[in-house]
Amino acid sequence: MRMVDLILKKRNGEHLTEEEIHYIIDGYTNKKIPDYQISSFLMAVYFQGMSEEEQLAFTNAMLNSGEKVDLSKIKGVTCDKHSTGGVGDKTSLVVIPLASACGVKMAKMSGRGLGHTGGTLDKLESIPGFKIELSADEFFDQVNAIGLSIIGQTANIAPADKLLYALRDVTGTIESIPLIASSIMSKKIASCADTIVLDVKVGEGAFMKDLKSAETLAKAMVKIGTLAKRKTVATLTDMSEPLGDAVGNAVEIREAIETLKGNGPKDFTELCISFVKEILVLCGICKNDSEAEKMTLEAINNRSGLEKFRQMVKWQHGDERVCDDYELLHISKVTKPVIYHGEPKYVEKLNALDIGEAAMLLGAGRETKEESIDLSVGIVLNKKVGDLVKDNDVLATLYTNNKNIDLAKEKVIEAYKFSEQKVERINKILEIVR
Amino acid sequence: MRMVDLILKKRNGEHLTEEEIHYIIDGYTNKKIPDYQISSFLMAVYFQGMSEEEQLAFTNAMLNSGEKVDLSKIKGVTCDKHSTGGVGDKTSLVVIPLASACGVKMAKMSGRGLGHTGGTLDKLESIPGFKIELSADEFFDQVNAIGLSIIGQTANIAPADKLLYALRDVTGTIESIPLIASSIMSKKIASCADTIVLDVKVGEGAFMKDLKSAETLAKAMVKIGTLAKRKTVATLTDMSEPLGDAVGNAVEIREAIETLKGNGPKDFTELCISFVKEILVLCGICKNDSEAEKMTLEAINNRSGLEKFRQMVKWQHGDERVCDDYELLHISKVTKPVIYHGEPKYVEKLNALDIGEAAMLLGAGRETKEESIDLSVGIVLNKKVGDLVKDNDVLATLYTNNKNIDLAKEKVIEAYKFSEQKVERINKILEIVR
Repeated sequence: MRMVDLILKKRNGEHLTEEEIHYIIDGYTNKKIPDYQISSFLMAVYFQGMSEEEQLAFTNAMLNSGEKVDLSKIKGVTCDKHSTGGVGDKTSLVVIPLASACGVKMAKMSGRGLGHTGGTLDKLESIPGFKIELSADEFFDQVNAIGLSIIGQTANIAPADKLLYALRDVTGTIESIPLIASSIMSKKIASCADTIVLDVKVGEGAFMKDLKSAETLAKAMVKIGTLAKRKTVATLTDMSEPLGDAVGNAVEIREAIETLKGNGPKDFTELCISFVKEILVLCGICKNDSEAEKMTLEAINNRSGLEKFRQMVKWQHGDERVCDDYELLHISKVTKPVIYHGEPKYVEKLNALDIGEAAMLLGAGRETKEESIDLSVGIVLNKKVGDLVKDNDVLATLYTNNKNIDLAKEKVIEAYKFSEQKVERINKILEIVR
Repeated sequence: MRMVDLILKKRNGEHLTEEEIHYIIDGYTNKKIPDYQISSFLMAVYFQGMSEEEQLAFTNAMLNSGEKVDLSKIKGVTCDKHSTGGVGDKTSLVVIPLASACGVKMAKMSGRGLGHTGGTLDKLESIPGFKIELSADEFFDQVNAIGLSIIGQTANIAPADKLLYALRDVTGTIESIPLIASSIMSKKIASCADTIVLDVKVGEGAFMKDLKSAETLAKAMVKIGTLAKRKTVATLTDMSEPLGDAVGNAVEIREAIETLKGNGPKDFTELCISFVKEILVLCGICKNDSEAEKMTLEAINNRSGLEKFRQMVKWQHGDERVCDDYELLHISKVTKPVIYHGEPKYVEKLNALDIGEAAMLLGAGRETKEESIDLSVGIVLNKKVGDLVKDNDVLATLYTNNKNIDLAKEKVIEAYKFSEQKVERINKILEIVR
């Protein structure tokens, strides 16, 4: 087999066999196939796509390049959740405790965030003492004992994906749906949960800008998951405006805890409930949607979800008193309001990307892996799409350490578009792909 | 400027500026841009193409990466000829002496052949003593003195093209018309002739398999040449069956000399005359086609073309007696006929690629640059498309050194398709693009 022939085959729109795909991934991982052949192959995939069978083979080849996490040591039905990421996306922090409270074993491995705010791991690290690195045994023991854990992904999960992603990043081949789908699913399947729940964000603040490509990605991932014998569901959710009100790290932890107490922003709470319901039905805990809804609301109302969150924090060496005392989260004390001036109007648009960039300006995110994040800063949105604003109303509140305040304010103002007509609130759940 | 942004721009179907294209070529030549970014860029070009302006900029960037040949030292109108190559293509060996005999200064630099038979340089080396490496001054002096020379391309012509070609070869990006056009034209323009005559072969035995893509390539090259202020003409010529009867190296030299004497195969002779006519009109030696035809036929009939060939051989240290004594060409003495058995039929098809591969089996060509060629072996076709064959007729004669005889015979038989109906001969000239 010669790599150049496989490049030509893909370039000419033919399908590669499982054996050929394994040859490529193994050859690249073992440094037998050079970067320059892989990058032209990836560009050919960008243009010609991959069949379902090719995507499954590609996913399998990547996950076989490293270790798997043997979740068989965990008793009960296990579930993993993944989000393609967005601005203000703290969903895992609420969904995982709630689903766990309802009896699902939530064993989640997360990646570090590269973007406008930190990832789930960064957010959790704003809880003093919280440890995201556990050994496999500690991870299994914790999930067996209390039903949930969120840890950092180990280095040996799908190393081929890590290599490929770095190459794609510098060769203009990130935006290929089959490559994105295989990349995500190789890590999810390697983490061996029985069920997989995917959150595919759509809009300005997300990787997928339009519904059509998000739908294609969601279908591709569900297909790969299903072919790999995992029960998989994907939900397409809106990311044209930020999710919830808080954007940052510690401020998002506060909002997640408030949501577990039943006091969260309406859009965010509804989205979390929808995910928990999906998980409960998928895992066979509930027979149908209405049963699942009842159970989920109960886990909020009786605070059993909050209790699970508290237990997780404690087991992972964090200070569980943050659940009652937000002072311990060390949210910045310097706040700057962004004020609206003008006639009464409705918020028509609130660009998630602009808000993300404003948070980044304050120091809440990182552009390169080496940068450090200021966990204490962030933005809380006081007005969102559909809200009426009047002269002197506060649009948003910046939590800052005096870095780039004016630039961030400008960005926040840029994010808002107003209308004289009444505007509908945005329904966050666009579509469910099963 | 970042290379990844330029890859994305091309991938998304936008046009690159002249500055951006120079950034890419210069960066690659100076090893500042890595292979893996260039190869994904080339694959994006394969899918998205290049505008005329991009192709000219690409050509210029490549030719500026090296030296130019300053033909201003040559008095009179200079002409360069290029063929995309095919089976039995010895056209330069006849066209250059004839055009030179008519007063055009034919200064040709050739590349080595990689394929079924050798290139023009290999063929010339089957003349004992013939030297293809001359210094620039020797080259200019010879063209000034006798009006023609064929030499090897110096290493410093368009080195960026050489680097890119090697990368394209292993990354599945050879078959891109803008890249082929720029590659050829960068070398032709760097060699600085006033006029450029291009032979674009079409069919089984050629790089371009169909008329449409050959036409696109021809138009692209003529456009680049014209924009670069060179008078340029391209002729699309048939390569579904081999050109002429001889396929090999020494056997092709013999056929070229016979053609200069007026005894060449009809198809090959007609094609050569057509090229010489084009050159004479393009260079302003003749006012029109009929004047050019008269002058060309005269150069054959009075043997002034043959005389030019003889002078070139002598000036380049070859044994010019080969013109009269073919024994000196050391054509292999071992001949094996390929015999037809069956009812009388007409040759319907004669697959050039199969004949090329048969010649390669005998040792007449090379697959890698390092392989050596057996100049003495080859094939002479006794029957071509349109010919009637009867039981026991010789289809072709193999000149061998006892290597792969049976395999080669099989390939030759495979090449022939017969028909009971009368079949028209193939007109070699398909179209002229000006």
